[in-house]
Amino acid sequence: MRFSTLFTKTRKDAPKDEIAKNAQLLIKAGFIHKEMAGVYSYLPLGKRVQEKIISIVREEMDKIGGQELVMTSLQKKEVWEITDRWDDEKVDVWFKAKLKNDTEVGFGWSHEEQITAMMKDYISSYRDLPANVYQFQTKLRNEVRAKSGVMRTREFVMKDLYSYSRSEEEHNEFYNKVIEAYHTIYKRLGIGDATFFTFASGGAFTQFSHEFQTLTEAGEDTIYLHRDKKIAINEEVLTDEVLSQLEIKREELEKVKAAEVGNIFSFGSNKCEQIGLYYSDKDGSQKPVVLGSYGIGITRVIGVIVELFSDEKGIVWPENISPYTVHLVSLAGEDENVKNRANEVYEQLTTKGIEVLFDDRADVPAGQKFSDADLIGIPHRIIVSTKTGEKVEYKARMGNESQLMSLDELISKFI
Amino acid sequence: MRFSTLFTKTRKDAPKDEIAKNAQLLIKAGFIHKEMAGVYSYLPLGKRVQEKIISIVREEMDKIGGQELVMTSLQKKEVWEITDRWDDEKVDVWFKAKLKNDTEVGFGWSHEEQITAMMKDYISSYRDLPANVYQFQTKLRNEVRAKSGVMRTREFVMKDLYSYSRSEEEHNEFYNKVIEAYHTIYKRLGIGDATFFTFASGGAFTQFSHEFQTLTEAGEDTIYLHRDKKIAINEEVLTDEVLSQLEIKREELEKVKAAEVGNIFSFGSNKCEQIGLYYSDKDGSQKPVVLGSYGIGITRVIGVIVELFSDEKGIVWPENISPYTVHLVSLAGEDENVKNRANEVYEQLTTKGIEVLFDDRADVPAGQKFSDADLIGIPHRIIVSTKTGEKVEYKARMGNESQLMSLDELISKFI
Repeated sequence: MRFSTLFTKTRKDAPKDEIAKNAQLLIKAGFIHKEMAGVYSYLPLGKRVQEKIISIVREEMDKIGGQELVMTSLQKKEVWEITDRWDDEKVDVWFKAKLKNDTEVGFGWSHEEQITAMMKDYISSYRDLPANVYQFQTKLRNEVRAKSGVMRTREFVMKDLYSYSRSEEEHNEFYNKVIEAYHTIYKRLGIGDATFFTFASGGAFTQFSHEFQTLTEAGEDTIYLHRDKKIAINEEVLTDEVLSQLEIKREELEKVKAAEVGNIFSFGSNKCEQIGLYYSDKDGSQKPVVLGSYGIGITRVIGVIVELFSDEKGIVWPENISPYTVHLVSLAGEDENVKNRANEVYEQLTTKGIEVLFDDRADVPAGQKFSDADLIGIPHRIIVSTKTGEKVEYKARMGNESQLMSLDELISKFI
Repeated sequence: MRFSTLFTKTRKDAPKDEIAKNAQLLIKAGFIHKEMAGVYSYLPLGKRVQEKIISIVREEMDKIGGQELVMTSLQKKEVWEITDRWDDEKVDVWFKAKLKNDTEVGFGWSHEEQITAMMKDYISSYRDLPANVYQFQTKLRNEVRAKSGVMRTREFVMKDLYSYSRSEEEHNEFYNKVIEAYHTIYKRLGIGDATFFTFASGGAFTQFSHEFQTLTEAGEDTIYLHRDKKIAINEEVLTDEVLSQLEIKREELEKVKAAEVGNIFSFGSNKCEQIGLYYSDKDGSQKPVVLGSYGIGITRVIGVIVELFSDEKGIVWPENISPYTVHLVSLAGEDENVKNRANEVYEQLTTKGIEVLFDDRADVPAGQKFSDADLIGIPHRIIVSTKTGEKVEYKARMGNESQLMSLDELISKFI
């Protein structure tokens, strides 16, 4: 991508009402645009980051047998009434409206009810199970407050996976597979070391649900971390009973701020019984299906990553989710030879399949180009100037030293 | 994909209230699920078709310099009031709701206003132009009637592209590029021959807007087609003046039913003037930006394609957008050798990167497998049975004859 044609520009300032570091940096660097409090559009650079995260999550969900679909935002009132989650007193984030014929509809803030009702059309026998389905879906939530940038918004992309199993054993087996898949995902996203499996309160059928919490001062949660065991406990379940169950002493725990980047939950057979999703087992008996739900807030993760990986100069993207792999800076000025050389480097890199943001702007001074590159945060920088001749200058976003290398050496770093 | 693990099943019947052929077939074959009138979820097979269409459209939009982003569903009232399109009397498809602080918000049925307002943050100089941006976005429209299956719905995926140009000339140049790109897209989607460039009514600044209309009895529009010139005229602009302008005689026209699969529209500088999007030209003068908008209803196109390409047995997908390239049917029964052979064929095809739906179901009779394959509509079918030995049997979805061939011969058909 040529910077000269990219319509977004870096900006000196974020909107005054934007107080979250993640959104400030993402706005200044041209990844997102603030439409209103808690509502952000994703511009070309931000869309690329979103797509990279989605690809990683999709790969890991497919590996454990997830089947991708996409449900609708528009929701029927009836199915949410069955589980008593239509009432605004019970669920306080609904957006609702009316069809022309006065039928009330909701806009999906979650999809357990809708998808479970749908499954009645596809599941009737033990042969139809297990079924594990997921989607990347734009959720709408009428949040009272939205002040954590893209970490808590009124409109966001979520990966939600639902597992339908024949028994608690089958459910638990899949539940554990998801835990492993989530660990792999956070590792691939670059936040594996900062992300902890966390015990949180369960529901009617299980003692615990589980969260994945990433350590950051910008987080809205307080958790109690056991660094050696690499697990954490949510404030709401921090009791002596739980501590003894997990064989943890209270004094071994560290109170830390964290942001939830994933949660997984067992519904037992409760919700399927309510909605009427039963299957006939081998012996002909009717049994309710066991449900689990597993979320990852895709756009929230972007916010968490920016909070974790940024410095006074800007963002520092983890390699796997950077919008481009290489930020190529041409310092040609009016020098036609350098211009040609920079174009040649750009063509050769892209021909090799390396993703390059090419700062080919003619009328921008070197200092501005470097500070833009620091702000945007692509991990690898390459400079072509009157000094680089047949070579190129390489510098990592977080490195202090630059080095001259041939184009072949450079390419071998990436492929 | 192994059919035995795919959670969707083919169904004998569509819901009774579903009268459109496209939705009936898509529901019976397991591509979509009807949530309510005009609201359909996309199941794994349907999601794959959607993604294939999106990939084709994305490639062609990128080729003409489009930059992908994604705007929000939640819309601010203020910007739509400027252009007098907030009022329900003026735009009758708004869904609206209120934030907790009583602020009224709308759910995006279109995005011209929002995106043009956003562009004020990125466009101020002639150097910032042209800018051509597009998105795949889920639109919500409170339609009075929704009876054409996935062709007219209350929730649908649309590709909308917006062009911002410095002058009418620059605008027209891009407008013509989009026309060419659209022709390429419909050709790649398999509906090129049935799709016609159509003159429709323009706005304040241009005599015409343009539609791309695909001939189908299921269409909601009536157009007047000139087969030789490969153009059509929308009913609303069929005047003697227009006919003489286009050098067409009325008697050369054929009155046909058609479905709009794309539309392109010039706003002139009108909307940018209203919203206040100006740029300073080389001479320092302030000029309003010239806007064009260009839509393709992604999910609508799926409906049109099913209307066009289906027979009494089911759907017949065009090659490029079929959910899988090959439908592999194993007729192993209890024969372990045939089972192993079918598995081997599946592995070899998928290893070569060929997308295969593998009907490995053990307990389903051959007749049912064939009728499911006909209903689902993947263009190429391969059968492995006790009769095929070291070869496989190939049959096209629309062919009457099957032929025995080696796996290598088969693979060479696809790669």
